[in-house]
Amino acid sequence: MGHLSPGLLTDLYEFTMAAALLAEGHADLPSVFSLSVRRLPPSRGFLVAAGLEDVVRFLEELRFSAEDVAALARLFPFDPAFLDWLVAVRFTGRVRAVPEGRIVFAGEPLVEIEAPFAVAQLLETYLLNQVTVQTTLATKAARCRHAAAGRLLVDFALRRTHGTDAGMKAARCAALVGFAGTSNVAAAARYGIPASGTMAHSFVTAFDSELEAFRAFARRHRADPVLLVDTYDTLAGVENAIVVAKELAGALGDAPDPGGGRRLAAIRLDSGDLGALARQARERLDAAGFPEVRIFASGGLDEYAIERLLAAGAPVDGFGVGTAFGVSEDAPTLESVYKLVEIDGRPVAKTSTGKETLPGAKQVWRRPGFSGDVLALAGEPAPAPGADALLTAVELDGARDPAGALAAAREHFEADWQDLAPEHKALMEPEPYPVARSKALESLGLELQNAGGNQGSA
Amino acid sequence: MGHLSPGLLTDLYEFTMAAALLAEGHADLPSVFSLSVRRLPPSRGFLVAAGLEDVVRFLEELRFSAEDVAALARLFPFDPAFLDWLVAVRFTGRVRAVPEGRIVFAGEPLVEIEAPFAVAQLLETYLLNQVTVQTTLATKAARCRHAAAGRLLVDFALRRTHGTDAGMKAARCAALVGFAGTSNVAAAARYGIPASGTMAHSFVTAFDSELEAFRAFARRHRADPVLLVDTYDTLAGVENAIVVAKELAGALGDAPDPGGGRRLAAIRLDSGDLGALARQARERLDAAGFPEVRIFASGGLDEYAIERLLAAGAPVDGFGVGTAFGVSEDAPTLESVYKLVEIDGRPVAKTSTGKETLPGAKQVWRRPGFSGDVLALAGEPAPAPGADALLTAVELDGARDPAGALAAAREHFEADWQDLAPEHKALMEPEPYPVARSKALESLGLELQNAGGNQGSA
Repeated sequence: MGHLSPGLLTDLYEFTMAAALLAEGHADLPSVFSLSVRRLPPSRGFLVAAGLEDVVRFLEELRFSAEDVAALARLFPFDPAFLDWLVAVRFTGRVRAVPEGRIVFAGEPLVEIEAPFAVAQLLETYLLNQVTVQTTLATKAARCRHAAAGRLLVDFALRRTHGTDAGMKAARCAALVGFAGTSNVAAAARYGIPASGTMAHSFVTAFDSELEAFRAFARRHRADPVLLVDTYDTLAGVENAIVVAKELAGALGDAPDPGGGRRLAAIRLDSGDLGALARQARERLDAAGFPEVRIFASGGLDEYAIERLLAAGAPVDGFGVGTAFGVSEDAPTLESVYKLVEIDGRPVAKTSTGKETLPGAKQVWRRPGFSGDVLALAGEPAPAPGADALLTAVELDGARDPAGALAAAREHFEADWQDLAPEHKALMEPEPYPVARSKALESLGLELQNAGGNQGSA
Repeated sequence: MGHLSPGLLTDLYEFTMAAALLAEGHADLPSVFSLSVRRLPPSRGFLVAAGLEDVVRFLEELRFSAEDVAALARLFPFDPAFLDWLVAVRFTGRVRAVPEGRIVFAGEPLVEIEAPFAVAQLLETYLLNQVTVQTTLATKAARCRHAAAGRLLVDFALRRTHGTDAGMKAARCAALVGFAGTSNVAAAARYGIPASGTMAHSFVTAFDSELEAFRAFARRHRADPVLLVDTYDTLAGVENAIVVAKELAGALGDAPDPGGGRRLAAIRLDSGDLGALARQARERLDAAGFPEVRIFASGGLDEYAIERLLAAGAPVDGFGVGTAFGVSEDAPTLESVYKLVEIDGRPVAKTSTGKETLPGAKQVWRRPGFSGDVLALAGEPAPAPGADALLTAVELDGARDPAGALAAAREHFEADWQDLAPEHKALMEPEPYPVARSKALESLGLELQNAGGNQGSA
């Protein structure tokens, strides 16, 4: 990006529309935009809201420099008055949002922005980008957690996420839903996530033999090592790992070992029939007197593969999930939209075939016991005693640190996760969760639909 | 990332392995690592190499600060000698690579790194990340170009790419294979790509009527406008666009119009039965005397949808491709690997089931007329007169600017694209392109396979 500001990470039409609004005298009209996911992918029974923290930072820091404006002027013949306006733009509006980590469903606003029309319009692309990828990845990660049924999960995705920004978000989303760690060093450092790692095939192939490679790694690794046993023949690799486990148990004399007596922590399987190999490895480790050495599996795993392995009784204690999680392979995106729902106090909607929107600023109410949501107009009373309002006012004060924000999101997730009924967590054909609409919202939607949106006065 | 360096965008085990190699005295052994894609996704007949420019910048700038080292030390109990070594690390090796934009196939090295072992190991995660996403997106974009059969293509992906890094890469990859423009302002500014945009539904819903919105946009847009006609009823929207086209043709008196007589450039369809709507819109525009007003389609389009629309004769002049392109929805990743192939002058390989690697530094030879490739050991002679060596030495001199590098990549792509036979470009069930192995490579591979990789001496 050179010296250009994040505010330029947007679609050209946001700027050309804002310029037209300014010229028409509409730039400052009060407006409300609503960000939601239109439909869930078929396999998804729920979503985990994520991305708000980056949205908040973007809003807090939104500004356009003289250099940004010069770059814009080279791309399109903007009115100079618009470029002057742009330099003065700050986000002075209000944000209501569902906190990160909460479980949400199709049609429910995740973020609502109240701001002058032209400013709110400029936010569309970045907000969609951040909320879409992070909600996609947090949801995928939660499905892995469901499949792993209490076993350890580690994020291995960075090498094949869509760029490094996605790699950071994948690690954070994984931690948000309870993964034990990430292999991503930058994310571990930034978000305060435990960093985790084993060894690669390259290390093994660099030595004259696998046993020699294992010995060197065990000797030099300043923590309990995990040995990767599938470089050549997996079961021979397990035998080599057992040799090293015995040597470690006897305490290697020349090992730098500040933590006291290190032990073989685990073996890692990364190819072949993971279920069969895990069973054979378990038998051999147990027979050799190492029932506490764990078996860690990786290699193309996702929630479906984890569920199959565990259903077949594979004795796997932990899973590294990489690519399939990090690109959310079976559902790499969501139908997220950012729509104008109110302008100058007047609710609006579009009526395009299959892409209808609901008018008005909204609230999402959750009935006690996570037993059903009600989508209502903002300002309506709770539909039931004890119902929980999902959208809350967001402070734009730059106060939270990355680790603190993640910790708060984790708490939100754990609370909702515990309450969400298992039938909505199913990996395939999940039971749809009930989301109703309030009568007031329903009536207003029908009214605008019948009027052809708001163009009755054409 | 705060103040942490890009070098930390890597997996923890790259550091723990490097530390073990240093302690064992193996850190400086000469090594060769090879980055390739193991298998193509079933629908892919070719790949477009991309990502090298970011790899080169990463290598040129690789260094670890005191702050990086402090962050690492908080994550894992590294040997202080390793952390000292890390602060002094620079990339001093050699890079051989397939230039960006060239068309490549499974098993062909895209990048080969010759460097001291521990340094080359540290590069794995970042190199895989950058080459994988960019090769994935450039390939997806090339398939869109194939489907569009000469019609205009514009990248609309930023709002739903996996983060902003992916959005920048999507725009660049699209331009690399010949898209006419991008909606992404930051990418347009950085890479010198034409910025392109129309209008959004929010603009239309903000006015009292669609016609009023169209008139305001046409009046204020300082270029030939494109009107989005599907906010309410698409064919009524076309009629409103025709009204505005007539008004523009009569020259709007009060329009700021520095470019002289502006005209309606196009209408955009974004929902519904795009083929039927395009035909009806075309008829109405023609009947109204506007055969030159173009029809632009968007809304969930990918190469498959474009091919279907055009096969059915839809009169669409241009396509905006967004999400499905930007996340490469049908094949969001590639089985990319970065493998040690030579250490201390000795070729090595791994023999894991289904994940075997081929030993040795390599060259890819392309027979004249794009009629077949030969994967050979580096240093072998050309397999035929006039064969083209794909891997070339890469200069690490920081000399190329972003726009220049993109222009060079575009030229490489155009040359290969023209020569690649259509049967390999097919969107479904493409004909596999022949990639042979040289006898020397085949023999060496078998030799190591029979010896169980290189562990014969265990």
